[in-house]
Amino acid sequence: MPELRKDPITGRWVIISTERRKRPADFRLESVHIAPDPACPFCEGHEPMTPREILAYRNGSPANGPGWSLRVVPNQFPVLRVEGTLDREGEGLFDKMNGIGAHEVIIESPHHLDTLATMSDTAVEQVLWAFRERVHDLKNDRRFRYIIIFKNHGAAAGSSLDHSHSQLIALPIVPREVRDEVDGAHAHFESKERCVFCDIVRQETSDRRRVVLETADMVAVAPYAPRFPFETWILPRRHQAAYEDAQRHEYAALARVLGDLLRRMNRVLQNPPYNLLIHSAPLAEPATDYYHWHVEVIPKLTKVAGFEWATGFYVNPTSPEESAQVLRETRG
Amino acid sequence: MPELRKDPITGRWVIISTERRKRPADFRLESVHIAPDPACPFCEGHEPMTPREILAYRNGSPANGPGWSLRVVPNQFPVLRVEGTLDREGEGLFDKMNGIGAHEVIIESPHHLDTLATMSDTAVEQVLWAFRERVHDLKNDRRFRYIIIFKNHGAAAGSSLDHSHSQLIALPIVPREVRDEVDGAHAHFESKERCVFCDIVRQETSDRRRVVLETADMVAVAPYAPRFPFETWILPRRHQAAYEDAQRHEYAALARVLGDLLRRMNRVLQNPPYNLLIHSAPLAEPATDYYHWHVEVIPKLTKVAGFEWATGFYVNPTSPEESAQVLRETRG
Repeated sequence: MPELRKDPITGRWVIISTERRKRPADFRLESVHIAPDPACPFCEGHEPMTPREILAYRNGSPANGPGWSLRVVPNQFPVLRVEGTLDREGEGLFDKMNGIGAHEVIIESPHHLDTLATMSDTAVEQVLWAFRERVHDLKNDRRFRYIIIFKNHGAAAGSSLDHSHSQLIALPIVPREVRDEVDGAHAHFESKERCVFCDIVRQETSDRRRVVLETADMVAVAPYAPRFPFETWILPRRHQAAYEDAQRHEYAALARVLGDLLRRMNRVLQNPPYNLLIHSAPLAEPATDYYHWHVEVIPKLTKVAGFEWATGFYVNPTSPEESAQVLRETRG
Repeated sequence: MPELRKDPITGRWVIISTERRKRPADFRLESVHIAPDPACPFCEGHEPMTPREILAYRNGSPANGPGWSLRVVPNQFPVLRVEGTLDREGEGLFDKMNGIGAHEVIIESPHHLDTLATMSDTAVEQVLWAFRERVHDLKNDRRFRYIIIFKNHGAAAGSSLDHSHSQLIALPIVPREVRDEVDGAHAHFESKERCVFCDIVRQETSDRRRVVLETADMVAVAPYAPRFPFETWILPRRHQAAYEDAQRHEYAALARVLGDLLRRMNRVLQNPPYNLLIHSAPLAEPATDYYHWHVEVIPKLTKVAGFEWATGFYVNPTSPEESAQVLRETRG
């Protein structure tokens, strides 16, 4: 019998399908293979092929040349533009504003074949630290209400360049899914005086069926009502609303757990394409008590069809108990 | 300069991107080609390959054999099951219910190569009438709160069988996107005493920049804040909350406009995969005044990446003014 499960944060229902049940071997897996590319704009030595860097980790080498371990540059084809004032306008029924925002690319390694799963823990920690630095800088711009940090790994997950990179988009609005998550967490706090994410960490680590791995600082779990097979969340044990306010050792802990999780997924799902997202509190919103930053990793194993995005109602062929068990019993 | 636009019903913001602007020729189009398939379970003469029919339009021929123009059968791999009682259960923080529902397939033609774009207006009208009949029947089951009717055309849009068909899923809950749309329409009515969809029809038919085609009964428009390129809505001019309560001549009018629209899309976008969805009021909810049924057709031209589904914030490379103009100036 299939099950309808409700996400305790957003209230979203998902179907855990039994008739269409899928184990790892049942997916038509699209492995990500990174081929060398002499024309890659993100490789060391090709710095003139990108816009000028906003941030770089260098050992004393001059900006915009070789000799770096990480670079942040503006996206060459930004979805929003940073210059200008935020004009708002009505048009009868309709509302618009001009597309002010920032769109940056975090080039995670100078080496073309590196991935977050194969890089050292220290190198991954550096990526997480760069996210933090960029958010702290962009927060000073009062036009921005939210900063999305995400990674598309592999063409099937939306990536257009193979070289390991993440993206950051600063927006003048709080997007709808974030709004729903923040409002849901707020409602939980209003009724219980507790953070819903802290409650999830408590229940999951005591129940254990959906735990993938845990350390002193971090817990990786398959959520109770996942939209997608093998969807996995990494939550810090310590309550904190905003990603950029985590402590230094928490970025180190997240780097270790993230690398471990991605290696497990690579083993079980044969180097799947995936999306990674950092969920953090909106800028300048007092979500201190009720929101709790976390990371979501979603391998791209299924096609999302009309039914799903039209209704926000997802059919997931793999139960989180099953995906967590498979990942838990795999070497990272 | 890119534009941020807000959907007046749900409040969802989208980016209409200018840096990433795409005209029809810029998409890597995946044309749908339907090849003959001697093993197709939906072809006339293969009736024993499907579950027994729930509804069929026949000229006196016996059930579950040849001699029909349309059949409705249960889905062989249903995401929900119709048998059983709707048990609800808590599990600490979490809520679940067993997966009670109906999942049916509407086989739209006995002929393998037919599509909604190539079938006669009368044959398309018959499909729309079958949707209506099934909804009226399923509405009698008090366990159901919402009925989704949708079509995935082409593998890239999620279809697993080429033979022209739609699906219907009856749910014991109202899904989240539907809830948002209904609540948004309700809020508009509360503040203005008018239906937001009627307001849209009025503004769009007077503005004309986003109108694709119109008839005495139906209007096809590119919505002001579309999530996807060439997203097109068909709205009845006459206010009516539920699809199944439309008048006979409105199904005929919808059939003509839908066939015309799909032929235009085929011409401009080279037989694209697409999703079609019927948006209708929840069952047994007094949305009479403020909701207004309509049909959404969304060609599958772009990949939806992590950024989009994580945030509910879509980047659309084609403005609705441009897509409407291209479709308007094409022959249907």
